[in-house]
Amino acid sequence: MEIENNPSPLFVPSSEIESRLSRFQDLMIQEGLDGVLLCQNVDLLYFSGTMQPGYLYLPVQEEPFLLVKKNLERAMEESSLTNIVSLSSSKEIPSLLAERDISAPQILGLEMDVLPAGNFLQLKSIFKKCRILDASILIRKCRMYKSPWEIENITRAARMLQRMVLEIPRILRPGMTEIELAGKLEAFLRQEGHQGYIRSRGFNQELFFGHILSGPEGSKPSYLDSPSGGSGVGPAFSQGAGTKLLKPHEAISVDFVGCYNGYLADQTRMFSLGEPPSAVKEAFRAVQTIQQSLLEKTHPGIPCDQVYFWALEEADRLGYLTRFMGMGPSLVRYIGHGLGLELDELPVIGQKFDWPLETGMVFALEPKMVLLEQGLVGIENTYQMTEQGLIPITTAPEDFQVL
Amino acid sequence: MEIENNPSPLFVPSSEIESRLSRFQDLMIQEGLDGVLLCQNVDLLYFSGTMQPGYLYLPVQEEPFLLVKKNLERAMEESSLTNIVSLSSSKEIPSLLAERDISAPQILGLEMDVLPAGNFLQLKSIFKKCRILDASILIRKCRMYKSPWEIENITRAARMLQRMVLEIPRILRPGMTEIELAGKLEAFLRQEGHQGYIRSRGFNQELFFGHILSGPEGSKPSYLDSPSGGSGVGPAFSQGAGTKLLKPHEAISVDFVGCYNGYLADQTRMFSLGEPPSAVKEAFRAVQTIQQSLLEKTHPGIPCDQVYFWALEEADRLGYLTRFMGMGPSLVRYIGHGLGLELDELPVIGQKFDWPLETGMVFALEPKMVLLEQGLVGIENTYQMTEQGLIPITTAPEDFQVL
Repeated sequence: MEIENNPSPLFVPSSEIESRLSRFQDLMIQEGLDGVLLCQNVDLLYFSGTMQPGYLYLPVQEEPFLLVKKNLERAMEESSLTNIVSLSSSKEIPSLLAERDISAPQILGLEMDVLPAGNFLQLKSIFKKCRILDASILIRKCRMYKSPWEIENITRAARMLQRMVLEIPRILRPGMTEIELAGKLEAFLRQEGHQGYIRSRGFNQELFFGHILSGPEGSKPSYLDSPSGGSGVGPAFSQGAGTKLLKPHEAISVDFVGCYNGYLADQTRMFSLGEPPSAVKEAFRAVQTIQQSLLEKTHPGIPCDQVYFWALEEADRLGYLTRFMGMGPSLVRYIGHGLGLELDELPVIGQKFDWPLETGMVFALEPKMVLLEQGLVGIENTYQMTEQGLIPITTAPEDFQVL
Repeated sequence: MEIENNPSPLFVPSSEIESRLSRFQDLMIQEGLDGVLLCQNVDLLYFSGTMQPGYLYLPVQEEPFLLVKKNLERAMEESSLTNIVSLSSSKEIPSLLAERDISAPQILGLEMDVLPAGNFLQLKSIFKKCRILDASILIRKCRMYKSPWEIENITRAARMLQRMVLEIPRILRPGMTEIELAGKLEAFLRQEGHQGYIRSRGFNQELFFGHILSGPEGSKPSYLDSPSGGSGVGPAFSQGAGTKLLKPHEAISVDFVGCYNGYLADQTRMFSLGEPPSAVKEAFRAVQTIQQSLLEKTHPGIPCDQVYFWALEEADRLGYLTRFMGMGPSLVRYIGHGLGLELDELPVIGQKFDWPLETGMVFALEPKMVLLEQGLVGIENTYQMTEQGLIPITTAPEDFQVL
């Protein structure tokens, strides 16, 4: 990786920002947008290098313009953009654009998937002459392709998970609660520099590091759009690890998200304390078989939904169709998801997503069986799509570990 | 606390739901709303007892109606409501209301502060004959008054923090990084049943347990609307604990949020390894004096902004006005905030909030000094407003602990 003249290696290099903006401007031209006004913190970070509160205006041709409501100094330190000003009220945006001779947009894109309705109506009244379009799909499309710098960050997040997996035999003991194990693994990751907070873009989608599930309760579906549910600690956080004790012979799944410099890596590994029931081992062989089959067939140009259908076919062939990726009404219709700064990025490797796979995409594949009597049994890795096929970024040992 | 016939003591009792709905319907009458349609997970939990995805329709007079997109069974288990149906698409909502003879709303309230703009436009097209109003202030107003059951949950969250503070002398060592200390305290809280995830309602407001700040870097302002900032681990999470080493004689602030059954308690305590500089001790005496002064004067009926102005006056009298609650443009204009299921609930004890304090309100007061050379020095407690004045819910020892 080229070392640029940045004050910190964690700062987004100016070459990254330039290439992102250039690709985004191409997308804006295709969609006929004159400009996009961003304010969600992750989008701000991606396109400017800082998430200090404010707005980033991206005109289709001119230079980007960062308007900072708070911590101008910190924004200037973190961002490589040169066009940065202070903003005291959103109402000033049009006049600040005019002062800088930036063309007023006629067709303006906003982050309609994350911008709260109240903020949207305010911006609509400020830009009342504009036609407003949803720019969120463009943003997500641009962020779908990862640069070598981004993949380096994701790789570091994956290495954290690898070290964590190697710690598990030293930590996992019968009589621990799921949440106690979770806390110890979380502390390990924090010490490695994990920011803790894991971002999802979808409304109401929230995650805390990931899910540790054990035994039959692991089959409980949650409010997330995920095959992985669990009891959680109660109705107020009804997902993931709960106060259940880890018992001998149960399937224990550790689905955790590493994070380095904002970038995520997603991985699931299986454990048990003493030999698990044969149904668990069989299900684990099935998810391994599905994973192997997808790795062999998946290449650039293959539509995402095709990969999902292959997984379904394989699950069916192995006799697991009704337990694959959830049960009954809680079934999810995907086998994988893009990830980067957020856990629910594009592409979706699922039923309704027929875009072809391309090099530079990074996504997790997570074949999982939900067994009523044994709980969740699965495997998950994060991959980079290359000309040579899928290359795993998460590289912790994949065997089912009987401790 | 009355033990009701609930399957789990963590489930929201039916008497809670009934009293919340009754108070909310009164607010709806005052505002002239025919009904409110909710879908944010915390609002769903508050008014129905479950956060399984879907919508909760609250008519101004009739029974509430819960429409569940996913995990109907889990929703029925968690919620004490009786009117619960399955929903496959948002478009079905009007016909499902009609089938149940629930009057169609003419004036409909939505959660405009958290509902994404795209979802808002979809609901607007589904309810195209309705006038749509923002119900968020009503929801927040309703949630501002805490019941004994809620205060019991907040108290349990506070007890977690108390036990955590007692652990700190055993954990805190020179040469640890901020984030390593954070991880160990977080693991302690997780073992105590903390859900980890801490919810804020405000757009772009995100927090991970809280902030551990040390030395001058603790004065760095963040993207949060908070006097507490910090370097964080990098520009992607530029707040709170970072990889900085904890050094002898530095001010170390531990501002952490406990959580029990979804309910939060907020507390800040100060530590140092060896005697801190006299400027730190002086600033700590000042925040203690401000806290004491507010405790003496604050009673039901006092406007929230008055409490803030008293704090400012006291900070001024003590010679700290320019360092109180932030520095320069990063100054925040409040001294406290309501909290419950979210960290940024009402009331705001701040400049622009003149509502009178009332019994049943729960809020944190956090007088904090931001010293350029020594970092953050503050104290914070969560209080319950009673007829007898403020009663602290967080009760960990308040002394500046020199270890």
